[in-house]
Amino acid sequence: MRRHSRWSAWLFCPLLLCAAPARTAAQAQRPPNVVFIYADDLGYGDLGAYGARAIKTPNLDRMAADGLRLTSFYSVSPVCTPSRAALLTGRYAARMGIANMHLSNVLTFQDTTGLPTDETTIATALKARGYATACIGKWHLGHLAPHRPIDHGFEYYYGIPYSNDMQPSMLKRMDEVIEQPVQQETLTQRYTAEAIGFIERNRNTPFFLYLPHNMPHIPLFASERFKNRSAGGIYGDVVEELDWSVGQVLATLERLGLDDHTIVCFASDNGPWYEGSPGQLRGRKGWTYDGGVRVPGIVRWPGRVRAGRVSDEPLATIDVFPTLMALTGDPGGGALPLDGRSAADFLLGKVSSSPENLYLFFDKEFLQTARFGRWKIHVARWNVQRYQAGAANQINQTLKAPELYDMSLDVGENYNVAANHPDAVRDLQRRIAEKLGSFPEEIRKANADLLK
Amino acid sequence: MRRHSRWSAWLFCPLLLCAAPARTAAQAQRPPNVVFIYADDLGYGDLGAYGARAIKTPNLDRMAADGLRLTSFYSVSPVCTPSRAALLTGRYAARMGIANMHLSNVLTFQDTTGLPTDETTIATALKARGYATACIGKWHLGHLAPHRPIDHGFEYYYGIPYSNDMQPSMLKRMDEVIEQPVQQETLTQRYTAEAIGFIERNRNTPFFLYLPHNMPHIPLFASERFKNRSAGGIYGDVVEELDWSVGQVLATLERLGLDDHTIVCFASDNGPWYEGSPGQLRGRKGWTYDGGVRVPGIVRWPGRVRAGRVSDEPLATIDVFPTLMALTGDPGGGALPLDGRSAADFLLGKVSSSPENLYLFFDKEFLQTARFGRWKIHVARWNVQRYQAGAANQINQTLKAPELYDMSLDVGENYNVAANHPDAVRDLQRRIAEKLGSFPEEIRKANADLLK
Repeated sequence: MRRHSRWSAWLFCPLLLCAAPARTAAQAQRPPNVVFIYADDLGYGDLGAYGARAIKTPNLDRMAADGLRLTSFYSVSPVCTPSRAALLTGRYAARMGIANMHLSNVLTFQDTTGLPTDETTIATALKARGYATACIGKWHLGHLAPHRPIDHGFEYYYGIPYSNDMQPSMLKRMDEVIEQPVQQETLTQRYTAEAIGFIERNRNTPFFLYLPHNMPHIPLFASERFKNRSAGGIYGDVVEELDWSVGQVLATLERLGLDDHTIVCFASDNGPWYEGSPGQLRGRKGWTYDGGVRVPGIVRWPGRVRAGRVSDEPLATIDVFPTLMALTGDPGGGALPLDGRSAADFLLGKVSSSPENLYLFFDKEFLQTARFGRWKIHVARWNVQRYQAGAANQINQTLKAPELYDMSLDVGENYNVAANHPDAVRDLQRRIAEKLGSFPEEIRKANADLLK
Repeated sequence: MRRHSRWSAWLFCPLLLCAAPARTAAQAQRPPNVVFIYADDLGYGDLGAYGARAIKTPNLDRMAADGLRLTSFYSVSPVCTPSRAALLTGRYAARMGIANMHLSNVLTFQDTTGLPTDETTIATALKARGYATACIGKWHLGHLAPHRPIDHGFEYYYGIPYSNDMQPSMLKRMDEVIEQPVQQETLTQRYTAEAIGFIERNRNTPFFLYLPHNMPHIPLFASERFKNRSAGGIYGDVVEELDWSVGQVLATLERLGLDDHTIVCFASDNGPWYEGSPGQLRGRKGWTYDGGVRVPGIVRWPGRVRAGRVSDEPLATIDVFPTLMALTGDPGGGALPLDGRSAADFLLGKVSSSPENLYLFFDKEFLQTARFGRWKIHVARWNVQRYQAGAANQINQTLKAPELYDMSLDVGENYNVAANHPDAVRDLQRRIAEKLGSFPEEIRKANADLLK
């Protein structure tokens, strides 16, 4: 009864019925469940629905066909930690002093950084609305109190608290280490079983399941059933197992009659690293070209989000927090100002455009690129210098910042049109300066040239 | 009459008629003209026929529709000089001691390297068959005797003898400097006028026109008529002007009634550098991923090469020499053994497959990758180390050479399937060892680990 009382309190609903027939009536009034499935280093082009040929992803392809497939969905960082901070809070990690966190892959227990305690996560906000909450998988926002999932609104935690290449290799349930080192071959299987268990336990209450897989981040591991099965090698095996996992989650929702009452989202935290496909996009993980930050974005909510819709409207992970707040009944959320905007009306088909928003892409504390409408602006030379470090002088002579790319014609960021659209450049520079003005002093100092 | 006597001598033809009506009868028996148009640093995805949206290339698109469009055509080097050496000789530059030539962009007149005098170029071979020959554009195979175009079979030369970013900036006609520094805005226009003039002068004799443009290599220049016209910025303007130039050449052939009697080819020397699109391919100029070496390849010969044909069969610039020798009447050519194979029967539609050939891609003297049939093998770690120099240790732990990519499913070289196809890896390693065994000692030493 605990769950019922929680969501009914949120809804001020007088009906407290446990019997199965009544559940449907109650469901119609209670806020929708949310399942957010997050892949790690999965590329824009790694799914069938996004053009993959070597890898078969029938479950994700069907999920996309049953809902909305976004073709300009962004993670706002090309690396793990800031991506996850932004997804869960609707705010840029550069506001939190953790833009550069956890780049070492050997952790110490003196490493006490993490998602600040004054940030509100989706879990914190939904828990306050009576949701059951769980994080199953990779956290990577601080492995010590007060930065753990259970400190940030998640009632249940199971997973590797950081990346699967980091040491010590450990699997935790709540705050207890249950395996060390982690047997990674069965990790996706176990995350899936945990996810199904959580859904089953909470079938009668609104729930938020955050399912951030450790795969396909390196090192790559698939279970016996999926090993050597894909035409995409071990990377393909791993992605096909993730696809199977998505299918299991969706089948569970269907089996429990929760299908129409659950918003399921799928995305990746950044582009592909050594293996994996960015599709036609330039760059990979670690870069702020779109290959590092544009990711698959699928939203499925039968009956509410129209099936078969495909949209090139820009949206980003920072919009997830306010969107979910709106879709679960109340646009409000945390106490701190959000960078994201609610796309609820867009998802529900009430408006055809996504909310206008300026998306910033940082490399550590330095702003590199930004997307606004059809435009992508490159404000710093960092990207290109990473690209061919040996030719920095020539690059500086050749491509002068800012560069401007028209994403409506040139998804590969191949043709700099800054000289052709000086008004667009000035408008973007003005918007960037205005936006950066709201960031902490450390970030304003690092980007002082962009604030002029 | 000089030209007539030359080609009639080649054909053993008794008809020596200058009158226009007779020209057609004579044409039917004389070998076809050859026009080879070569762009500099143009990417696989920069033409409309290859997926470009920001850049409009109606003339090249029509040329492709009128002939054969190759979607797996390779330059065998990701940089200028070795690419051009291979195209003109049918042999790898690594055989000639110039694999690493001209990487400095300031030349001195003590720099006496160049295409060795014992190499036979297409021009030398066709000149011996009675062809008029010209090189109009960028040479980059040695700017001093005995390495100039006029030393290598070209009776006429007009152009910048090297890249347009190199110093001293000079335009030459034959061996005379006619402009210094070069006014690059009108360079493509002037190359086009020179090409048309050469065709007009040689309308009554077989001719070989090699037209290697300096564009779109940086710095980028377009004429007033093309500036600010393209949605692809200055890079797009430059490519659209090249497309116009192709249209002018084709219109000239049509006007002179030479259309059906001229093989016209279009390609690029390597992938795009800072701007320009590699399409879905990984990497850019300087890399031996396909983005650095796979280029547009279009062949037009009305009535002989079937219009509208598109083929994914692998072919490369080293095959051009023997193919043109066969199409102009005699499979033979130079005295040195060729790396290329004749694709004449394939072009003429007599067979559906291109000749089986192993294509090697070197970075300087080091073999990096090779393409054979559906497979691309990466034998060295160089590529990835260039990609993210800072993470070399982790890369070496993660992606171990050799890597194997299935180009029939994975054009982006994203999914290493070496572990899934050990037989293919061994077969390729054996073929590579056998092939490298025929290279000079310097190359065998540099690649000793691949010869075991």
